[in-house]
Amino acid sequence: MTQSQDNSGSRHRVVILGGGFGGMEAAKALRQAPAEVTLVDRRNYHLFQPLLYQVATGGLSAADIAIPLRQILRRQANARVRMAQVAGIEPGKRLVVTDRGEIPYDTLVVAVGASHSYFGNESWERFAPGLKDLENAAEIRARILSAFEMAEQETNPAARREWLSFVIIGAGPTGVELAGTLGEISRDTLRGDFRNIRTEEASIFVLDLASRVLPGFPGDLSSAAEHSLIRLGVRPVNGVRVVDVDHRGVTFERQGRRERIAARTVIWAAGVQANPLGKILSERTGAPLDRAGRLLVEPDCSLPGHPEILVIGDLACFRTAGGQALPGLAPVAMQQGRYAGKLIAARLRGQSLPPFRYKNKGTLATIGRHHAVADFGRLHVHGAPAWFLWLFVHLLYLVGFQNRVLVAIQWAFHYFSFSRRARLIVPPPSAEPGVDEQA
Amino acid sequence: MTQSQDNSGSRHRVVILGGGFGGMEAAKALRQAPAEVTLVDRRNYHLFQPLLYQVATGGLSAADIAIPLRQILRRQANARVRMAQVAGIEPGKRLVVTDRGEIPYDTLVVAVGASHSYFGNESWERFAPGLKDLENAAEIRARILSAFEMAEQETNPAARREWLSFVIIGAGPTGVELAGTLGEISRDTLRGDFRNIRTEEASIFVLDLASRVLPGFPGDLSSAAEHSLIRLGVRPVNGVRVVDVDHRGVTFERQGRRERIAARTVIWAAGVQANPLGKILSERTGAPLDRAGRLLVEPDCSLPGHPEILVIGDLACFRTAGGQALPGLAPVAMQQGRYAGKLIAARLRGQSLPPFRYKNKGTLATIGRHHAVADFGRLHVHGAPAWFLWLFVHLLYLVGFQNRVLVAIQWAFHYFSFSRRARLIVPPPSAEPGVDEQA
Repeated sequence: MTQSQDNSGSRHRVVILGGGFGGMEAAKALRQAPAEVTLVDRRNYHLFQPLLYQVATGGLSAADIAIPLRQILRRQANARVRMAQVAGIEPGKRLVVTDRGEIPYDTLVVAVGASHSYFGNESWERFAPGLKDLENAAEIRARILSAFEMAEQETNPAARREWLSFVIIGAGPTGVELAGTLGEISRDTLRGDFRNIRTEEASIFVLDLASRVLPGFPGDLSSAAEHSLIRLGVRPVNGVRVVDVDHRGVTFERQGRRERIAARTVIWAAGVQANPLGKILSERTGAPLDRAGRLLVEPDCSLPGHPEILVIGDLACFRTAGGQALPGLAPVAMQQGRYAGKLIAARLRGQSLPPFRYKNKGTLATIGRHHAVADFGRLHVHGAPAWFLWLFVHLLYLVGFQNRVLVAIQWAFHYFSFSRRARLIVPPPSAEPGVDEQA
Repeated sequence: MTQSQDNSGSRHRVVILGGGFGGMEAAKALRQAPAEVTLVDRRNYHLFQPLLYQVATGGLSAADIAIPLRQILRRQANARVRMAQVAGIEPGKRLVVTDRGEIPYDTLVVAVGASHSYFGNESWERFAPGLKDLENAAEIRARILSAFEMAEQETNPAARREWLSFVIIGAGPTGVELAGTLGEISRDTLRGDFRNIRTEEASIFVLDLASRVLPGFPGDLSSAAEHSLIRLGVRPVNGVRVVDVDHRGVTFERQGRRERIAARTVIWAAGVQANPLGKILSERTGAPLDRAGRLLVEPDCSLPGHPEILVIGDLACFRTAGGQALPGLAPVAMQQGRYAGKLIAARLRGQSLPPFRYKNKGTLATIGRHHAVADFGRLHVHGAPAWFLWLFVHLLYLVGFQNRVLVAIQWAFHYFSFSRRARLIVPPPSAEPGVDEQA
């Protein structure tokens, strides 16, 4: 295939890499700008990641939280979408190299995000998948549901217990949300589905190096979350360092002592690492990386010495005036995306913008029915009010009117019937190490 | 794993193989019977196959048409579900052999259905996937959507035309439904989504050996369907024999002449063949097979000489009093399933039932918005009335109140916005022969 021609004439070419929260907002903020916007993503959809754990636990379907990029940008005449895998960037030539040809840019917005980190233990991935994309979600859903199916057909009590044991590594928001949902599934959703096992006897562990769950939240909210988890039958195991993961369980160290939990289902919700494109950009531009592989950016989100390259979202290490690095959260990426779009539009008018400033509107994490925590700085909320707020905010930010309607209806069904309709094992279990029979 | 013990005591053990229309109805019809019912399926859900083409074309999600078997049988205390792959049947020992151990039965209901047949050309499958399960639907959806993405980035007009050409082999109900939906997608759904291509210029061909589309329907309805297809931009190619399929197109013979359509996306909707379990049962019991590999059954759906083995649905060749074999349709399987359940219950009461009789309530096929055909024997209906009837019947028979509500809402959104929300390419295209670059 030859390089495709973007008939953009002499208009300023903005290329945005990544259709996540940052890239999407950057593209939309350029709607009125005299620019030719190209959004590049290897996937054809924007993913609403905060609800991905509900797809992984059979509550929602992929289409409820994934919206075609072309649909979002359909009416934006100056924007086009290219589905391609980015292979490299050549800042000298102002070119993006993809598997479908090269794309020239005048301004580049890099918003490719982050993926899991196993901290050098990549071999753990097949035993403990992480939750970053729809494929992960399908895999985790299949493992969770298959574990109950295997337990139902297992007569050896010790082996059955292993199938009914679930370990989540990482007690941040994703880990806590997964653990809480697993608690609800085993206690409510699956109750009555099986004949040989009592699903409510499932053991759900959530492990973390920190001394408390939700270590990013204030201490009182961590306590509230821990209390809620325990009420759902989840056992938080804090202050432990995982030293090994295999298909039969997790080995960890607690206060110097080695312990093990035998479990057939292990989920990784611990570390993230920046997209490898960060390293490439660092090598080509000399921009420094932080320890997580993120690119240190200027106060206007640009790379040092490269005002035409803006880096936003999870790939960027943005230091506030106080010196603190902003966390890898959706609101940060969205605000930086909007800022990047506005900055480019301002430059095209010959104007400038003050440096980016993050407005923290609060952080939420949900644990289960009627339980969530909300951190608004001085104001801390937990329990049912935080939970209803969580529902409202997630419906509000979910892209697409139809998705909002359908997710609201499904949540209403869950609420009143405890049922989760998407309890599908697709594809059926193969000889995956996490699900198979051999020891 | 050891063989699991079903603590059914001395109750009559009914084992049902397959959770499709036949097996599901058989299990439900045994609700009041003094029997221990075990439903065995390698999947954990019942699939509403008549709407599978809508999943394949991005209109619905898997969870809209797939319902967990355990949910359906949750309140039926005498029924249990075992998720296992059937490897064989030993009629002499009255045992089913699965990958999760053996299951003894007193009465066996075999309802394992059929899969595609490539008529001996199994190598075509990777170029032309068929549509039988959710995995196929995801694959076909990814291929269709990826083809438009590839066309958008292709500058060579001939190569672009190949990506915008779609061939459906088989003009039965599934082929016609797929072709009509493809017509709607290219003309309405995707309009405005792309910048370089005009999706409405896509070429959609539907090929069949028969001299008309929907050969199973009366001639006047075939004509109406053909007319509707042409209005959607679909080109029916009748009276042709496919002789080769590869990743660049389809070669066929028409009136002795060899022709070729260059197309990157080919879908197989032509033949079905009975599940291989039919052959195993035939060898073990001496029951004859028909040419499609189906087991010839007695008027009470049992195998000759084996009243304790009932075969229903697509695996059975049931001859009516007139000598005609019943077609492989959902209503046949459902009625036979209910009959099988009632027959077993009657036998347990020491009674008998008259032979099975199929009540033909009519056959429907839909082509696109406002276009469907309905065959009620003497009464033939087509156009908008048949289409609304089709909508109503499919909502009515869809299992689960929640699914009915959610599908109805999504159809309403399609109807008014022409949008199909599940336009997701998951997983993203790999080096599959149907999607890749190399010639």
